[in-house]
Amino acid sequence: MTDNLKVLRKLLGEVSDLSHAAALLAWDQQTYMPPGGAGARAMQLSTLSTLAHEHFVADEMGAAIEGAKSEVKDLDPDSDDARLVRKAEHDFLKEVKVPSSWVAEYSRVTAMAHQDWEQARAESDFKRFQPHLEKIVELRRQYADFFKPYDHVYDPLLDDFEPGMKTAEVKSVFETLRKRQVALVQAILEDGKPVDDSVLHQHYDTQKQWDFGVEVIRAFGYDFKRGRQDKAVHPFTTGFGIDDVRITTRIYEDFLPTGLTGTMHEAGHAMYEQGIDKALERTPLAGGASLAMHESQSRMWENLVGRSLPFWQAYLPELKKVFPAQLSDVSLEDFYRAMNKVERTFIRVDADEATYNLHVMLRFELEIALMEGSLTVSDLPQAWNERFESFLGVVPSDDANGVLQDVHWSGGMIGYFPTYSLGNVIAAQLWEKIQSDIPDLEKQIASAKFDALLGWLRENIHRPGAKFEPIELLRKVTGQGLEAEPYLRYLEEKYRQIYEL
Amino acid sequence: MTDNLKVLRKLLGEVSDLSHAAALLAWDQQTYMPPGGAGARAMQLSTLSTLAHEHFVADEMGAAIEGAKSEVKDLDPDSDDARLVRKAEHDFLKEVKVPSSWVAEYSRVTAMAHQDWEQARAESDFKRFQPHLEKIVELRRQYADFFKPYDHVYDPLLDDFEPGMKTAEVKSVFETLRKRQVALVQAILEDGKPVDDSVLHQHYDTQKQWDFGVEVIRAFGYDFKRGRQDKAVHPFTTGFGIDDVRITTRIYEDFLPTGLTGTMHEAGHAMYEQGIDKALERTPLAGGASLAMHESQSRMWENLVGRSLPFWQAYLPELKKVFPAQLSDVSLEDFYRAMNKVERTFIRVDADEATYNLHVMLRFELEIALMEGSLTVSDLPQAWNERFESFLGVVPSDDANGVLQDVHWSGGMIGYFPTYSLGNVIAAQLWEKIQSDIPDLEKQIASAKFDALLGWLRENIHRPGAKFEPIELLRKVTGQGLEAEPYLRYLEEKYRQIYEL
Repeated sequence: MTDNLKVLRKLLGEVSDLSHAAALLAWDQQTYMPPGGAGARAMQLSTLSTLAHEHFVADEMGAAIEGAKSEVKDLDPDSDDARLVRKAEHDFLKEVKVPSSWVAEYSRVTAMAHQDWEQARAESDFKRFQPHLEKIVELRRQYADFFKPYDHVYDPLLDDFEPGMKTAEVKSVFETLRKRQVALVQAILEDGKPVDDSVLHQHYDTQKQWDFGVEVIRAFGYDFKRGRQDKAVHPFTTGFGIDDVRITTRIYEDFLPTGLTGTMHEAGHAMYEQGIDKALERTPLAGGASLAMHESQSRMWENLVGRSLPFWQAYLPELKKVFPAQLSDVSLEDFYRAMNKVERTFIRVDADEATYNLHVMLRFELEIALMEGSLTVSDLPQAWNERFESFLGVVPSDDANGVLQDVHWSGGMIGYFPTYSLGNVIAAQLWEKIQSDIPDLEKQIASAKFDALLGWLRENIHRPGAKFEPIELLRKVTGQGLEAEPYLRYLEEKYRQIYEL
Repeated sequence: MTDNLKVLRKLLGEVSDLSHAAALLAWDQQTYMPPGGAGARAMQLSTLSTLAHEHFVADEMGAAIEGAKSEVKDLDPDSDDARLVRKAEHDFLKEVKVPSSWVAEYSRVTAMAHQDWEQARAESDFKRFQPHLEKIVELRRQYADFFKPYDHVYDPLLDDFEPGMKTAEVKSVFETLRKRQVALVQAILEDGKPVDDSVLHQHYDTQKQWDFGVEVIRAFGYDFKRGRQDKAVHPFTTGFGIDDVRITTRIYEDFLPTGLTGTMHEAGHAMYEQGIDKALERTPLAGGASLAMHESQSRMWENLVGRSLPFWQAYLPELKKVFPAQLSDVSLEDFYRAMNKVERTFIRVDADEATYNLHVMLRFELEIALMEGSLTVSDLPQAWNERFESFLGVVPSDDANGVLQDVHWSGGMIGYFPTYSLGNVIAAQLWEKIQSDIPDLEKQIASAKFDALLGWLRENIHRPGAKFEPIELLRKVTGQGLEAEPYLRYLEEKYRQIYEL
């Protein structure tokens, strides 16, 4: 390795260590930290993220990047080293525009906001969360302004989660999705053969649910020697290196799908991180290509696999062994239909595939309005409820089931939500390619065999980590850019069959 | 607050945050980390400790200390600010002598040594650990030499754990202890009325043991809202702020005392940290005065309280409710005697109070010989066994039960062991003072009331944190320096009664 590249790798390694340490502090905060720890933890996270930022934008780093650029200029532009220098430069040029004082304040504000959001949600008390969110929106506007000029104030936020993506592109894809999904939901609820999911609303022992979920994701290929699962109020995946990627879940004793689908979803994220090439460890390439690409993995395992008929051909017999009293009478067909029941419900994470994107679009539109300044935080609950009714035909029962339901805004993550729907779209694009590469995929899933699927994902998506921008990677793998059509095809076909439309 | 002091507090706060983050990484490493995480974790810990060191010895810190000195010179010398500047200067002048390259290497060497020590102990294979320990002894000699001139090569090491203490003072106190403790053990084993502890060697459900321990330390005053207990192979206490101080324990299903006394011991440490004045948070004063002072707290709750007759008057009836089959027939007197059985055993952490200090003195003498160069690491196992026989009359069955039993040396902690015995000595000195200040202390303990005791400790020992050096604090509270006599009085009286000498 050449000299500047060596220095660059060392410096990036230290930033990676700081970020991973911060990630562990955040993991602990949501799993095991006693309530008293909140205040000090907020300071610690602030210090670590500020230091990570300062180290990343240091003159030394800039010089190492400059020097390394000339050292890699004759390499294959897709080699690890060339891509590393390119990514480092891209991130450096972005991050250097953000003052350390902003990073420190953002970290402190969001840490405190998270604590009060938990309380606010528990008590359905938006007023408690409001001042925090006002501060966060203000900080996020300041953040966007560091990147002026921009096409849209939302662009710099989106770019953090979805490198290279523009607000206008998202709007366009969402426009296509919305029309067809609203129509689909309407057809299902007005003309579909009703689905009875009462079989899922029985008492299911939570430990047995946990164990079943573990068995499923172990079969998927999630490696527990390089990860673990814990309980959290809001499930998430986090990692502290390629060989330590952890997931969390929550389980309801009176509704079966939440625990299992959540576990499959997070395992999808985690297998992505566990599958990254070890040569990229401790570099900015040792992560997913983007959040949408990440979500394509989690939603694929959760839905395209975990809510599919072949999956339940393999696993319903197993689940019946665990819960004979509850499930012995149910047919595969009825269980599969129940797992895919379409409803106008309040909670995004519990939403079926037909309505899911509508939940996301609602948030996307509200975020844009907040960022543009056409909506104030104090008016947000009302705006939420109005839009919810227009998208989904119902009004949330209270703010806990409405505007307060998601953790994201308390963590400052504005610009994140659209990646969920983009993930659905990408998942379907990849799925079509996988089906053509693995013709007996459904048969394999029906036999609980996932190694060919995981192997394909490892090779095509996981291994390169963040070497490529998401759409660049998508194009390499499928030959297409972002396309809504495969997802809409998948949805319409699936629900036409289930609801006999 | 004046300007330099403000800067100083900010800089020290960042160092504190880094250290606490490192402490959380270490906690996770010993509680929940999956095996795959080890490699990345070692790098992260090395980066954090190196950064904490670099931040602490930065020119900016030196300048802030200098500036703050003149700002506090008219304050009460015992005020928080004056003491903070004094402590910061003391630590700065020490740490600035240690090169970053040494810190990084020490961190790396000890991380690797720890892994091989675990293997070496499991296989009783000293040769596997030997090269690591040789490197560690060499690094520790280099470390001592950064502080030349010294009275004794062991002094700089001791001073890290026991500020202000000299090797000669420890030797002198240990000389007094040894003669009388060796004689006491001999009298017990030759002339004492035998103690039967078979009641403790039955099957005890580990979850019930856990719950009972939690009940006891909750009654002591350990605050679970500001802490938690987890399982670990080697029990320890660690904290990430005054309001997040955690303990770990290990429980054996076929021997009752280990779990409970370990839990009480760690709770003693943790209540110390939880009791520090919140005004000292994020400063170098937000810790115990020294390891010996810390150990005085843990050993006090474990032994002076937890192995006392009054304690079991209160708790044996409770324990009988939990384990009726095992305990219904045992008398208070017999149970108390069983809990205090004296034996020539190999393992320090399982040793009774009569032999405990002998285990420590052995290590102290060997460490001094290693540091002086009169003993080589390759000769250490033999030296251990010879000295063990002369102190305790038996030879360890193998190195796993001998020289390899403790974690400390693998972590580079030479100079730490004597603080255990000094802690016993200090505990007894404090206890005499507490008994005179709270005349019905024993009666309170026999009624499971610990608030007056904890209140006394909070006020006199915990609140000031590290504002005073340990012996300075001891003198403030008891009017005495370090004195072996109270501990020897306590021991001799206790065992004369138990063994009817």
